[in-house]
Amino acid sequence: MAKATEKHTHIQLEPQAIDGNPIVVEVTRGSTVESRHRGSAIVVDPDAHVVANWGDPETLVFPRSAIKPVQAIPFVESGAAEAFGLGDTEIALACASHNGEPQHVEAIEAWLTKIGLDAKDLECGTHWPFDREAARSLADSGGIPSALHNVCSGKHAAMLTTALHMAEPTKGYVRIEHACQQRVMGMLEFMCGLDFADIPRGIDGCAIPAFAIPLGNIALAMARTAAPDALPEMRAKAITRIRDAIAAEPYMVAGRKRYCSEVMAVTGKKVMVKTGAEGVFVAALPDLGLGVALKCDDGATRASQAMMTAILVQLGALEADMVDALAHLMRVPLTNCNGTKIGEIRPSRPLAF
Amino acid sequence: MAKATEKHTHIQLEPQAIDGNPIVVEVTRGSTVESRHRGSAIVVDPDAHVVANWGDPETLVFPRSAIKPVQAIPFVESGAAEAFGLGDTEIALACASHNGEPQHVEAIEAWLTKIGLDAKDLECGTHWPFDREAARSLADSGGIPSALHNVCSGKHAAMLTTALHMAEPTKGYVRIEHACQQRVMGMLEFMCGLDFADIPRGIDGCAIPAFAIPLGNIALAMARTAAPDALPEMRAKAITRIRDAIAAEPYMVAGRKRYCSEVMAVTGKKVMVKTGAEGVFVAALPDLGLGVALKCDDGATRASQAMMTAILVQLGALEADMVDALAHLMRVPLTNCNGTKIGEIRPSRPLAF
Repeated sequence: MAKATEKHTHIQLEPQAIDGNPIVVEVTRGSTVESRHRGSAIVVDPDAHVVANWGDPETLVFPRSAIKPVQAIPFVESGAAEAFGLGDTEIALACASHNGEPQHVEAIEAWLTKIGLDAKDLECGTHWPFDREAARSLADSGGIPSALHNVCSGKHAAMLTTALHMAEPTKGYVRIEHACQQRVMGMLEFMCGLDFADIPRGIDGCAIPAFAIPLGNIALAMARTAAPDALPEMRAKAITRIRDAIAAEPYMVAGRKRYCSEVMAVTGKKVMVKTGAEGVFVAALPDLGLGVALKCDDGATRASQAMMTAILVQLGALEADMVDALAHLMRVPLTNCNGTKIGEIRPSRPLAF
Repeated sequence: MAKATEKHTHIQLEPQAIDGNPIVVEVTRGSTVESRHRGSAIVVDPDAHVVANWGDPETLVFPRSAIKPVQAIPFVESGAAEAFGLGDTEIALACASHNGEPQHVEAIEAWLTKIGLDAKDLECGTHWPFDREAARSLADSGGIPSALHNVCSGKHAAMLTTALHMAEPTKGYVRIEHACQQRVMGMLEFMCGLDFADIPRGIDGCAIPAFAIPLGNIALAMARTAAPDALPEMRAKAITRIRDAIAAEPYMVAGRKRYCSEVMAVTGKKVMVKTGAEGVFVAALPDLGLGVALKCDDGATRASQAMMTAILVQLGALEADMVDALAHLMRVPLTNCNGTKIGEIRPSRPLAF
C-alpha cells in the first residue's frame, strides 16, 4: 500500500464566531415548528479549499458507515476483488449499509462461498434485518438472522477477501492490530490527509475501530474520491472503479425505501452519497470535483438526509429533472395513521433557499 | 364540566439570556462525545412558581401523548368510567401510549365490547404494534393490525365511552368541533391555565387536534395533577383516581422494555411519568407537589428519557433504592452487535450532577 504523502492537511476557514451549530432542519406540525435539528456541513475541493460550510467543521466526527467507500479502496487497489472474480455487486456491497433483504444476503453468501469462507467467519455480529419487511419475512419463514444480515456484512466480506488475498490470517481481522485494520486505517489517513496517531478512537457498531475525524477532513476524503486524478494511478483507478460499481448497483448499497439507493438510482454517476449512523452523510461529486461531509448534531437520519438533499441542490449538483425527482427527500411530507398530511421535515436557514 | 377559573397564567422566570437551549444529553463512543441533544425543561408548583428551569420554557411545544393523563380527566370526572363499570386497567389505558401487546389489545377489545362498540368505531388509524416483538408475533400468527393496536387506542376508547355517556354521537369524535374534543380542549385550557384561542394548532398522529403550548403551562398542568387539592372537588377526585390507576397498572400505560412502565413499576405512587412523541416528557410528583415538563429540541426519545431521569434524581423525587434501580435509565450503556460496550447516553451539564 502507498504511504500517506501528506499529513495534517489544514482545512482553511474564514474566521467566524461559532456559538453552537445552526438549526439546519425543522420538523413542522401544521404551521408550527415542532422539532429542530442542528448540524454542521462542509464542502471542499481536493486541495482542501473550502467551498462552503455551515456550523463548525472542526468538530470531531465519527464518520461511521459513511466512510465505507474509502474503507473499500484496499479491497480493489490490492487486486483482491479482481483475483477472486468479484464485480460491481460485491464492490457496491463492500460500501453498503444494506437492508438485509434477500438479494443482499444471498449475494454476500455467494461471495463468501466463492472465497471459501462462510457466515461464521464474519466478526460483525448479528442483528435482525434493518428493513422491517425483510425482518418480518425472515421471521415468517421461521428463520433467524445471521451475520449475513448485519448492515455491514459486505464491508466485512471485503475485509476478509483482502486478508485472504494478502495471505493474512482471517481470524481477528476486526482488531486494530490486525494488518487488515492497519491497512484500512492507513487508507483513511491518506484520503483524509490526517495522521490518526492523536485522534480519539472508539469501537464501531460492527466491532471494527472507529476514528473521530474533523468533519473537514472527511469532506477532503470525499473530494479526493470525486476527483482522484492527482492521486497515485493505482489508487485513482480503484476509486473510480468503486464509484462506477456503486452507480451501477445502487440498490446493493442500501435497498428498498432507502435514501442512498433512491438518490443514486436517479443521479447515476453524477452523485455518490453514503449514510452513516448518528446523523452523518457524505457525498462525492465527480462533475464538480467536490466532496461533502455533514453531521446532524443529535444523530438523526431524518435530518441528515434533508441536509444532504438541500446541499446537493444548492451546489447545483443535480439536473433540473433530478431536483424534481428528489424534492420529496428535501421537504419530506409527514402523514398520520389516517394518511392525513400533518407536517413536514424541511431544511431551515441557512440550508433553505 | 367546570369552566376554566383562570386564564393566561404567566410562568414567572428569572430574566436570562437564552441563545438556544443548552446541550442536555450527550451520546458517547469511547471517551468522545458522538452526538449532542439540546432541550428545555421546567419544574413548577400548582401556583405557577418556577422551581427550576433549563433552556427556554416559553417555547411552544406540542405535548403530544404526554398530556394524555389530562385528556383522560373528563372520562373519569363525567362519571363515564364508573357508569360503564370500568376500572384501573381502562383508566390506565386511557392514559397509555401502549406497545400493542396482547394484554393491551385484548383489554381494549373487551372494553369496547362492554360499551357496545368495536374496533371500527375507533378513528385513530391503524399501525403495526409499536413493540417489534408484538408486531412479529402478530405477523407470525397471520394477523394484521387493527385500530386496537394503535398506541393511542385506549385514549380513543375513553373518548368514545365519554361521548356515549354524554349521549353524543360517536362518529366524528376526533374532529375539533365535536363535543368530545371541545370538552377535552376545555380541560387542557383549565389545567394549563391558558386560553387556547390564539395558540397554534396541528393534527396529532392519531387524528385528534394537537395544541402548541408553552412548556411552562404544560408543567403547570402536571403540578395541578400532582397536587389537585385547590381544584374543584370532583376534578381533584378524578385526577387522584387517574394517578392511582396508573400507579396500579403501570404496564398498561406502555409495556415491555418501555421507560414509563419501568419507572412507575419502581416508584409506585411517588412518580407519574408520561412520554410524548418528538421528545416530550412530563411528570407529576405528588410527594413534592410539583409538575415537570421537558422537550428535547430534536424530538429524540433517548434524550428525553435521560433528561427525565436526571431531573427526577436532581429534584430528590426518588428514594435511594429507586435511584439505584433506575440508574441505567439515566446513564444508558450502549453496546454493539457483539455485546461490547461502546459508549453511553448520559445527561450533560446542566442536567448532570
